[in-house]
Amino acid sequence: MTTTTHAFAAHAADAPLAPFTFERRDPQPDDVAIDILFCGVCHSDLHTVRGEWGGTLYPCVPGHEIVGRVTAIGNNVTKFAVGDIAGVGCMVDSCGHCPSCNDGEEQYCETTGFVGTYNGPDPVMGGHTMGGYSDHIVVKQDFVLKVTHDEADLAAVAPLLCAGITTYSPLRHWKVGPGQKVGVVGLGGLGHMGVKIAAAMGAEVYVFSTSPSKRDDAKRLGATDLIVSKDPQAMADHVNSFDFILNTVAAAHDLNPFLALLKRDGTMTLVGVPESPHPAPDVGHLVFKRRALAGSLIGGIKETQEMLDFCREHGLTADIEMIRIQDIDAAYDRMVKSDVKYRFVIDMQSLKQA
Amino acid sequence: MTTTTHAFAAHAADAPLAPFTFERRDPQPDDVAIDILFCGVCHSDLHTVRGEWGGTLYPCVPGHEIVGRVTAIGNNVTKFAVGDIAGVGCMVDSCGHCPSCNDGEEQYCETTGFVGTYNGPDPVMGGHTMGGYSDHIVVKQDFVLKVTHDEADLAAVAPLLCAGITTYSPLRHWKVGPGQKVGVVGLGGLGHMGVKIAAAMGAEVYVFSTSPSKRDDAKRLGATDLIVSKDPQAMADHVNSFDFILNTVAAAHDLNPFLALLKRDGTMTLVGVPESPHPAPDVGHLVFKRRALAGSLIGGIKETQEMLDFCREHGLTADIEMIRIQDIDAAYDRMVKSDVKYRFVIDMQSLKQA
Repeated sequence: MTTTTHAFAAHAADAPLAPFTFERRDPQPDDVAIDILFCGVCHSDLHTVRGEWGGTLYPCVPGHEIVGRVTAIGNNVTKFAVGDIAGVGCMVDSCGHCPSCNDGEEQYCETTGFVGTYNGPDPVMGGHTMGGYSDHIVVKQDFVLKVTHDEADLAAVAPLLCAGITTYSPLRHWKVGPGQKVGVVGLGGLGHMGVKIAAAMGAEVYVFSTSPSKRDDAKRLGATDLIVSKDPQAMADHVNSFDFILNTVAAAHDLNPFLALLKRDGTMTLVGVPESPHPAPDVGHLVFKRRALAGSLIGGIKETQEMLDFCREHGLTADIEMIRIQDIDAAYDRMVKSDVKYRFVIDMQSLKQA
Repeated sequence: MTTTTHAFAAHAADAPLAPFTFERRDPQPDDVAIDILFCGVCHSDLHTVRGEWGGTLYPCVPGHEIVGRVTAIGNNVTKFAVGDIAGVGCMVDSCGHCPSCNDGEEQYCETTGFVGTYNGPDPVMGGHTMGGYSDHIVVKQDFVLKVTHDEADLAAVAPLLCAGITTYSPLRHWKVGPGQKVGVVGLGGLGHMGVKIAAAMGAEVYVFSTSPSKRDDAKRLGATDLIVSKDPQAMADHVNSFDFILNTVAAAHDLNPFLALLKRDGTMTLVGVPESPHPAPDVGHLVFKRRALAGSLIGGIKETQEMLDFCREHGLTADIEMIRIQDIDAAYDRMVKSDVKYRFVIDMQSLKQA
């Protein structure tokens, strides 16, 4: 049994998104059905829709920052009840039995890889998964998150499901906390959450940006200051002083000026993969201070729940601009120009106007 | 007061080493005077003597893998007595009060940098420090190591002072031990000690080499097997399986094939800095498995003592070829061709024949 789902989809890399209907499965015994209230707009949506990473399956319904209300549950579902507010992030399934899945790190699933919320192989219906630019979604309960923020904040919670966990996970993994000096490279959708979360963890936070005009915003978000990364003197003032740097910039750039700012035993963690490689880093920066260059990918389901709970306790949500689904292509064009503070979120009620 | 010291020195980048005499200070209150018995020959000696790193101060007396017998001590010396066997490694001093020195990580001294055993600024005599290709040396007791191996083994102990600690320190820092699969890239002076030490720590050790002919030696040294790094199928058989890889190859090479063999959360640590950069690594290897690329530099004095004691307990020394000081230039030429198993050590008695 299936249910007709209303959505916006891209039918080709060069076509705008347009209204689209398709069938989703009705809840299986372990499934949760969710009416989608809000869906955040991630750069990955844009890259996938426009075929920039290759491998896009059309029609493509993107969206993996989903918040909505539970409308039905399968017989085995114990964690959710009808009426609950729930979230879905970047993953809807994984193998469940490899070392990474056993460790609650499904994002690193070592057999099948995790099943993406969109553009992944649909394990039940066949074909490919369809994401959150739609009016409802059906997901295994093990990949559904509890959202306990105030209902008035739900739109601003949606981006936590990707931008939030992508920054929270490395900050937690590398044990950021009080007494530490932490840098966040790039003040976009990811970076602005990184600043908020690192500050809430008790660290002294600095933003690295090429745009000095973002200084006031950086401070408002919780940073001590903004360091203009293209100003060699400003950078030199902070040499050998950072415990950890979270680098959210996916565009290829020189990593060396940031590596040089880490303390002995400091780590810089990348959460994006550039289309063309970063210039080769000078490994002397690593050897002479026992520093590390690392990477991190979203976060596991258990950790995503921990992140949502942490954000609620600390009163954290994303800074958002709400849009109608009909305006998604214009929003993509603005994202390409980094013209958003700091995340677009689609009010999914707008679908009914389509 | 000073003592005339007999040595071999280079007087220019393109000149062979030749007999040379100079004055060393007599022991100050905190100093230990050592008659040098053996001195290992490190690639750094060759690079420095031949001016390949720039900054070489001539006349240059290299050598920082020193074992000898204590002949005199200053009034404040409590750790050594005349007649003791002692070692000196890459460092003879550091600032003593920065965070790294306070942590016993003098190799990362953050103010002056550590004072190298040769080619460093001599803190007492002025000019520059002179190393172990000489008949005696005077060093602050805090930078002198206790050697408790059997006296018959002392020549083979000398390389532990650089090759031993350079591999022991990262293996210890990244917590190599039983149940772990560890790779060692390169089977030279450093690599052969890395294999011995990692195996003694209880890890399952594999050597990566371009030379299949080294397989028997790799196994004899303690490795489970040798993986031919230029054989893509041999490499593919080990994808995602290593907890830690110690990369001892200083020549520029592609890091990606090794990064791909690390497990989730695995680290590859470089202990050499190439003259030209390694090709840019694909940071996708880091992001999609939360792997790290790191560096490490020799080790602190406390850790060097720990390494010497560990090696004695486990019966570990270097595999060496003993040479006379008169044959040092020929030894350098063989080192350039990697024609040594696995470390040259100078019998310093040969100086008396000069």
